[in-house]
Amino acid sequence: MLTASPDLRRYLTGFASSFGFVYTDAQESVFFTDPRYAEGARAALKDAFIAVEVAQSEETVLDYIKSKKIKTLAVPMERVSLPQYAALKKRRFKLTDSMPALEDRMCFKTEEEIGHIAKACGIAERAFADLLGQLKEGMTENETAGLLEYLMRKHGAEDRSFETIVAFGKNTSVPHHASCEDKLKKGSVVLIDFGCKVGGYCSDMTRTFLFGENKDDEFKEVYAHVLEAHRIAAENICNGMTGIQADGFARDHLKKYGLDKFFTHSLGHGIGVNIHEAPRLSAGSGDILRNGMVFSVEPGVYFEGKFGIRIEDSVTIENDRVKSFMKTEKGLTVL
Amino acid sequence: MLTASPDLRRYLTGFASSFGFVYTDAQESVFFTDPRYAEGARAALKDAFIAVEVAQSEETVLDYIKSKKIKTLAVPMERVSLPQYAALKKRRFKLTDSMPALEDRMCFKTEEEIGHIAKACGIAERAFADLLGQLKEGMTENETAGLLEYLMRKHGAEDRSFETIVAFGKNTSVPHHASCEDKLKKGSVVLIDFGCKVGGYCSDMTRTFLFGENKDDEFKEVYAHVLEAHRIAAENICNGMTGIQADGFARDHLKKYGLDKFFTHSLGHGIGVNIHEAPRLSAGSGDILRNGMVFSVEPGVYFEGKFGIRIEDSVTIENDRVKSFMKTEKGLTVL
Repeated sequence: MLTASPDLRRYLTGFASSFGFVYTDAQESVFFTDPRYAEGARAALKDAFIAVEVAQSEETVLDYIKSKKIKTLAVPMERVSLPQYAALKKRRFKLTDSMPALEDRMCFKTEEEIGHIAKACGIAERAFADLLGQLKEGMTENETAGLLEYLMRKHGAEDRSFETIVAFGKNTSVPHHASCEDKLKKGSVVLIDFGCKVGGYCSDMTRTFLFGENKDDEFKEVYAHVLEAHRIAAENICNGMTGIQADGFARDHLKKYGLDKFFTHSLGHGIGVNIHEAPRLSAGSGDILRNGMVFSVEPGVYFEGKFGIRIEDSVTIENDRVKSFMKTEKGLTVL
Repeated sequence: MLTASPDLRRYLTGFASSFGFVYTDAQESVFFTDPRYAEGARAALKDAFIAVEVAQSEETVLDYIKSKKIKTLAVPMERVSLPQYAALKKRRFKLTDSMPALEDRMCFKTEEEIGHIAKACGIAERAFADLLGQLKEGMTENETAGLLEYLMRKHGAEDRSFETIVAFGKNTSVPHHASCEDKLKKGSVVLIDFGCKVGGYCSDMTRTFLFGENKDDEFKEVYAHVLEAHRIAAENICNGMTGIQADGFARDHLKKYGLDKFFTHSLGHGIGVNIHEAPRLSAGSGDILRNGMVFSVEPGVYFEGKFGIRIEDSVTIENDRVKSFMKTEKGLTVL
């Protein structure tokens, strides 16, 4: 098995690097990296079943594998570019896809991985609480996103886990709104979707709230339904269930109020070294949810040109039931 | 020509989106995107020679192209994954590489593109000036990086143009140091490599300075040599020169002091919608530098376990000579 993607390499070695290859067969596991990382990698991996070797190029690594008379190589197909594919074919390797095996393993988190994610969630929550105290009329979405990311790092995060989404007013109706220069106004709906990284692992959380009281009863009514959809999903998802069943709890609840057609995305996704990974919790996902998995629960409803609401926690399944990493209030906050 | 990469799609349409395909032949240019972006794209592109169509999947787009009896398709080979390649082969397209043509065109910037880059440089410089006033003993590298990114967005940046590198003390000796929890101490060498985005275009800048006076004469001496290497390169690079010649100005100067072996990277790289693009300014690059190109000039010297120094401006060639976008002092700053 040969793995070159930074995220998968990070997962396999526990060591962050911008260049390298992990090679594994029945006899050995070798992390090839360049001289910049070799010293650090040797120190970090001294107790691990993985050797560290210096390699300046993929060619060196492929020649090494070829010299071992290896004929079939497992690579993560969706991460392989055409030039890499050509280099593999040139050496006549028969290729199989390692991605399913990696995905199957990565979705079960060890205690250490859960620890990192829990810490990333705690930091994100502290930063969010600080942010609420610093929001001011006239701040732009971009400025708010930058401030939140700064606060996460101030509290000890390595970095954001993805581009923070800050949406004001009707921008909240776009699920993946790109933050812009729009300014915060009194009474605005505010949606913030954010997370940070600790030990290479991500957190993910969304809150929707009001920046000052407003008289939109429809917003408050829909908010209550989305919140209830979240609560029902979190209470009922359990070990052994499919992604379809999990998604259905929230979708069925919203359907009672004719809101399911505005729930335009899936209920959740796995979280780990990547912000999106297995399992998928969606209307089409046969993934089985198991103890030790970590994923988001994020029902959302979007009215184009008006407002959107999403309430998201990062959670795990522990002793058969959902346990949230988040302590932040989910009831409607009016600042 | 079919283009799916977000950066290339952004370049071809001027419109930012997380999903879409640009198809171009002798008769037409079509931007296929999903319903989330269609409305915004139609408004933004109403005066452009490009139609906007809705497509939910790559399959729809490939079927459209196939229905036009197109046989040969140009795709950016290095951005095509194996599953995408399989989808293209299934429809029996003959493939050619569009990347060289795209690179050749992207390195020449229009007035509008230069305007975005100049603005991104100005914002980065204002944020850096603010940061210098806010640095305090005990701040971590991560916190400092977060603060600088926040200040850039406060001044109007869309986002950072890459992960900000903040290195304190001996961490400066690693050219691509990943910022960590190390704390700022009095007398420390500080290296900050950062940039932001405006209108989708990047800025890139590095400064190395002292956080309080220290008695390391070697550092000051080497700093003067790197600064002089920067000055000589910026003064001598001109329209029509190769990347090798450009790189040589800095490298030859450092060689006089036995420092060239510590200059472990190339002199510079093109800057545009991507932080690294053509042209390359390196000891092996035959790229010809021309009026209208934008690139970095960044000589650097690194002593492992001791300190590193890099001084970088984003520049363009205008009327045959290098013109820097940066006004920030390059002489040694002692805070």
